[in-house]
Amino acid sequence: MSLPGEFRSDNAAPVHPQVMAAIQAANSGSAGAYGNEPWTAAMHEWFKSQFGSDAEAFLVFNGTGANVTALRAMGRPYFGVICSEHAHINVDECGAPEALAGLKLIGLATPDGKLTSEQVSAAASHGQDNEHHVQPMMLSISQTTEYGTCYTMDELGELSQLKDEFSLSVHMDGSRIANAAAALGVSVRDIVTAGGVDILSFGLTKNGAMGVEAVVVMDADLFGLEVRFLRKQTAQLASKMRYLATQVTALGENDLWLDNARHANAMARRLANGIWGAPGITITQAVEANAVFAVLPPEMIADLQRNFRFYIWNERTSEVRWMTNWATSEADVDDLIAAVRDR
Amino acid sequence: MSLPGEFRSDNAAPVHPQVMAAIQAANSGSAGAYGNEPWTAAMHEWFKSQFGSDAEAFLVFNGTGANVTALRAMGRPYFGVICSEHAHINVDECGAPEALAGLKLIGLATPDGKLTSEQVSAAASHGQDNEHHVQPMMLSISQTTEYGTCYTMDELGELSQLKDEFSLSVHMDGSRIANAAAALGVSVRDIVTAGGVDILSFGLTKNGAMGVEAVVVMDADLFGLEVRFLRKQTAQLASKMRYLATQVTALGENDLWLDNARHANAMARRLANGIWGAPGITITQAVEANAVFAVLPPEMIADLQRNFRFYIWNERTSEVRWMTNWATSEADVDDLIAAVRDR
Amino acid sequence: MSLPGEFRSDNAAPVHPQVMAAIQAANSGSAGAYGNEPWTAAMHEWFKSQFGSDAEAFLVFNGTGANVTALRAMGRPYFGVICSEHAHINVDECGAPEALAGLKLIGLATPDGKLTSEQVSAAASHGQDNEHHVQPMMLSISQTTEYGTCYTMDELGELSQLKDEFSLSVHMDGSRIANAAAALGVSVRDIVTAGGVDILSFGLTKNGAMGVEAVVVMDADLFGLEVRFLRKQTAQLASKMRYLATQVTALGENDLWLDNARHANAMARRLANGIWGAPGITITQAVEANAVFAVLPPEMIADLQRNFRFYIWNERTSEVRWMTNWATSEADVDDLIAAVRDR
Amino acid sequence: MSLPGEFRSDNAAPVHPQVMAAIQAANSGSAGAYGNEPWTAAMHEWFKSQFGSDAEAFLVFNGTGANVTALRAMGRPYFGVICSEHAHINVDECGAPEALAGLKLIGLATPDGKLTSEQVSAAASHGQDNEHHVQPMMLSISQTTEYGTCYTMDELGELSQLKDEFSLSVHMDGSRIANAAAALGVSVRDIVTAGGVDILSFGLTKNGAMGVEAVVVMDADLFGLEVRFLRKQTAQLASKMRYLATQVTALGENDLWLDNARHANAMARRLANGIWGAPGITITQAVEANAVFAVLPPEMIADLQRNFRFYIWNERTSEVRWMTNWATSEADVDDLIAAVRDR
Repeated sequence: MSLPGEFRSDNAAPVHPQVMAAIQAANSGSAGAYGNEPWTAAMHEWFKSQFGSDAEAFLVFNGTGANVTALRAMGRPYFGVICSEHAHINVDECGAPEALAGLKLIGLATPDGKLTSEQVSAAASHGQDNEHHVQPMMLSISQTTEYGTCYTMDELGELSQLKDEFSLSVHMDGSRIANAAAALGVSVRDIVTAGGVDILSFGLTKNGAMGVEAVVVMDADLFGLEVRFLRKQTAQLASKMRYLATQVTALGENDLWLDNARHANAMARRLANGIWGAPGITITQAVEANAVFAVLPPEMIADLQRNFRFYIWNERTSEVRWMTNWATSEADVDDLIAAVRDR
Repeated sequence: MSLPGEFRSDNAAPVHPQVMAAIQAANSGSAGAYGNEPWTAAMHEWFKSQFGSDAEAFLVFNGTGANVTALRAMGRPYFGVICSEHAHINVDECGAPEALAGLKLIGLATPDGKLTSEQVSAAASHGQDNEHHVQPMMLSISQTTEYGTCYTMDELGELSQLKDEFSLSVHMDGSRIANAAAALGVSVRDIVTAGGVDILSFGLTKNGAMGVEAVVVMDADLFGLEVRFLRKQTAQLASKMRYLATQVTALGENDLWLDNARHANAMARRLANGIWGAPGITITQAVEANAVFAVLPPEMIADLQRNFRFYIWNERTSEVRWMTNWATSEADVDDLIAAVRDR
Repeated sequence: MSLPGEFRSDNAAPVHPQVMAAIQAANSGSAGAYGNEPWTAAMHEWFKSQFGSDAEAFLVFNGTGANVTALRAMGRPYFGVICSEHAHINVDECGAPEALAGLKLIGLATPDGKLTSEQVSAAASHGQDNEHHVQPMMLSISQTTEYGTCYTMDELGELSQLKDEFSLSVHMDGSRIANAAAALGVSVRDIVTAGGVDILSFGLTKNGAMGVEAVVVMDADLFGLEVRFLRKQTAQLASKMRYLATQVTALGENDLWLDNARHANAMARRLANGIWGAPGITITQAVEANAVFAVLPPEMIADLQRNFRFYIWNERTSEVRWMTNWATSEADVDDLIAAVRDR
Repeated sequence: MSLPGEFRSDNAAPVHPQVMAAIQAANSGSAGAYGNEPWTAAMHEWFKSQFGSDAEAFLVFNGTGANVTALRAMGRPYFGVICSEHAHINVDECGAPEALAGLKLIGLATPDGKLTSEQVSAAASHGQDNEHHVQPMMLSISQTTEYGTCYTMDELGELSQLKDEFSLSVHMDGSRIANAAAALGVSVRDIVTAGGVDILSFGLTKNGAMGVEAVVVMDADLFGLEVRFLRKQTAQLASKMRYLATQVTALGENDLWLDNARHANAMARRLANGIWGAPGITITQAVEANAVFAVLPPEMIADLQRNFRFYIWNERTSEVRWMTNWATSEADVDDLIAAVRDR
């Protein structure tokens, strides 16, 4: 469905037709503002079906809104947030965590986007109980990561042990959580349970929605009140909520959201397989979800950009990123493979 | 189109069919994220057609997002914001201006929601150059007000003179700016020019959109850069921007937005005329836009709430608020009039 | 000891000689930074002798620092702080509570500076559980007030009941808590117990110190950790702490702090008695501590300001404030009385 | 004057006797609060004698207060601050820059504490004009650094060129600026001019004062108003200002502040010379001011700590820090040298 050549971002995709149909279907008559209507009730049901009855979801507008609301809910002003130096909260939110939540981020070097338990342990130990330092009481992990990699269940389990050891609150930036669930072949609840996640930013916009994300609190008694008020204060409470809620349920129906993610992942895998071993190309990250990172000659990049849209991740190292999404077709991918191989 | 009896809020209305059609029409193929596509370009054109070529509009998700972004752009941390004590920023945004912008609001008593030039002058004079006090360098006015009243062009002119006298930055909360333009029979540009407005929160959601507002900077050279970065940081930058932008242009086409506002205003006027003089009812605010405030006996309120939805504004004084919107029908209004009169 | 005619502020007084002597005495040899030395240990002992062993004191630099640290420790970003509209935090701290703590202050009209239980109850009830409103979960009371008045033990008891009813956290701005203890003839512990105070800003600078205040947490287990880290973060942690700590113990020795406050109060009482009934003068507030507020003819103000220093509180109403302090002499007061009566 | 064996911190030193004498001398009669008195006027004169008539100094309580006030004055919420990863603002202020100023710090790796022009240039280029990133518009350099090293005048000149190229605002954390001036043999004005400094945190507490630092604005027209209001709001405005101001003028008289710094530097040099080449010891940083960093065997550290106080900088690498100050005697140093050599 996307135009040939679109590999810039999963945000470049259109809205899935079933989501669009649901939005239209919701457009009938008046409805209570701020979620006081049946569409929002159905959305809540769906999230409880995924995360259990103790969980509660709060819809927000975008990923930055989800992440900042979550961090604000878990944070005290003197807390530090352990995260990857590449984390979206650290490099792509224009300083929102610092400016809106007042929190210091402790960005650790992660060649593949994944924090190791060793480095989290070291960071969580640093400066403890020293009033001159922020207290590293929060951990934020991205699943999948900004490099298209995916924590394994074992890796999540190791981080979860540190949570207990250091009394950390754990946030998961799940902007692409669907791709992770599809990749790991487990439920999202399995993922958050393995990682000891307290609050999950559950992404939908990149996975076929028009524009909606959820802040999912695993224990509503613990952080529910905080998120409810901070969502409003962080300017993330929609008045015509039904149009957000119905996107969720449309994606939930018959696991459309998982199908979308599986398809996106498969397209990235197809691309990686297709270009594997092509002259001059080195794939630089494990292809575990819907992204392919590769180094290729600058002149090849220039050639490809005539017919394909994608980002140059790092000019200096000549590394590019190709993202796939629910709307990427096999033909799109095969065209790109051919262009790479035909040079 | 709304169900009979809906007078709770203009937010309870559905999306106008032409807006919904435009959203669907935009759902074709991939598009650049964050506004790098033709729908957003067209939106910019429309705003320039309304406010001139020096102006620049930045789409955001909701009214709180628009207001907070505007205040953050104009403010230094030691500024105070002169506003009505009833202003949305002061009572309905869960403390967002204080928490996200760090600003103290100076809420003045306004029986009809409108600040007088006398009280603004007094507030702007207070504590000037005294480092123990916040400096009252900002003014925020709501047009129309939270009481459904509307500043006249002369009243705006008086406030504008104070802007010059006290070097104020002026924000207008135009959540219902369309209703004001319709009521005054002038252009929105006339309104902002008369009031000396620097940044306008231009509301669309209450006027037929699905969910989009604009922060309109009158002089892009003055506040444009600030708003661009602060919109992102305030978690108000949509990735799939086309679906927001197309709502604006749909409402702009053939002045649909003004037609919607005129209709809503006419329905409020019809309601006010219809119940005028009915036994036991006192209309408490001038009906200048799309709201009717009235005091009526508690038992009449209870009766009416069986068939009509509306808010009790003040339990103690037995005052109610009826809001009309683009979807309110004459029959809706006549039913309510009849119910009031038939008692 | 002050020059004749000094009635501007208790801040205009010099340092009490015993405090100065203690500062000098501390100036011997090296000492651990940040309080890791015997002077700070002795200071802690003194505070425990006053407030019990569950309490913990944290020294800070000034009153704004004490108040903001206390509010930050008790607050979540969506809390509102019920206070008098005349409270120091509301009008004399340049918006620090909003800018540094992100909190909205809910300033209530208080002709005599004292909040009544009726108005606190109403404010604490307003907007509860409504996510559009800040949650009024904090109460800040000034003892003595900015008008030189003093809550009685009964009045404090009524506020304390509301604390329980509404689950409020209670802050007391005790910038002049010594004057209150002297006036009421009770211990400071009695005062905080009666008022249900969680955190007290304990003032010393106005009462003979050079520059030190304490944030006293009544239950160290509840707010101690918060204050410890937030004191540092709010830039209130002194490196050469011994010079602050020794001021406290010097004032504590033989209840010098209470003697200072009793003297200041007596001087205000002497002034009030002396001018009572003088032609043209109306004392406008109960003289319960170390301030006298009065309305007098503008020309008399002009005359008096030739030989006496004091503030015109309100130009419009021709109201002045005379403050007394530990260094105010009977002769100072009698000179002022004579000047008032001799006109 | 310090006890034998004190090498923990320059904060452990007592107050210089001439400073203490000045404090006592100021303790006579009443004085206007907040700096409205002759001691503060004299302080202003001294700073103008050092930095020229365009400069203006604002006294604050401590180094964190100075730094945060400076950063708040120069910053917009979406700015990033380029600094060393070891900078005091980045690691020793409990997240105050993030929490109070809302700014993201961009900490760069600096083995010797000094930023190179190459890395500042790279950081200042990164993310420019990209609304997803903070804008790296501010530079904060520490002179001397946290490692006791000192930027040369040439190095400062290179940074100053980047200021012009990237339109940076430049803050200098001069907690030990006196040691730098003494080390370089130039005036402080030369230093700030060479570095293109806009606002200097001028340290005095570590150099013989009791507790006072200054925020020195080089162009009062540019940042003076901001600092004046933000000092108050950041809880850094002393009421009894005379006792802070007189510390400055006492240190300024006959360049006592420079003598103090020269002495401290000489003691560090003496120590470094004395232990140079001792078995098992490696001095790890250039000794350019009043700090000596060295790696030595863990058992030697344990031995030395029986008779000498100093910090273990890094347990893992067995690195220690010895700080000297105005009160460090030659005998103190020689005792330490002997202890090191006698093993």
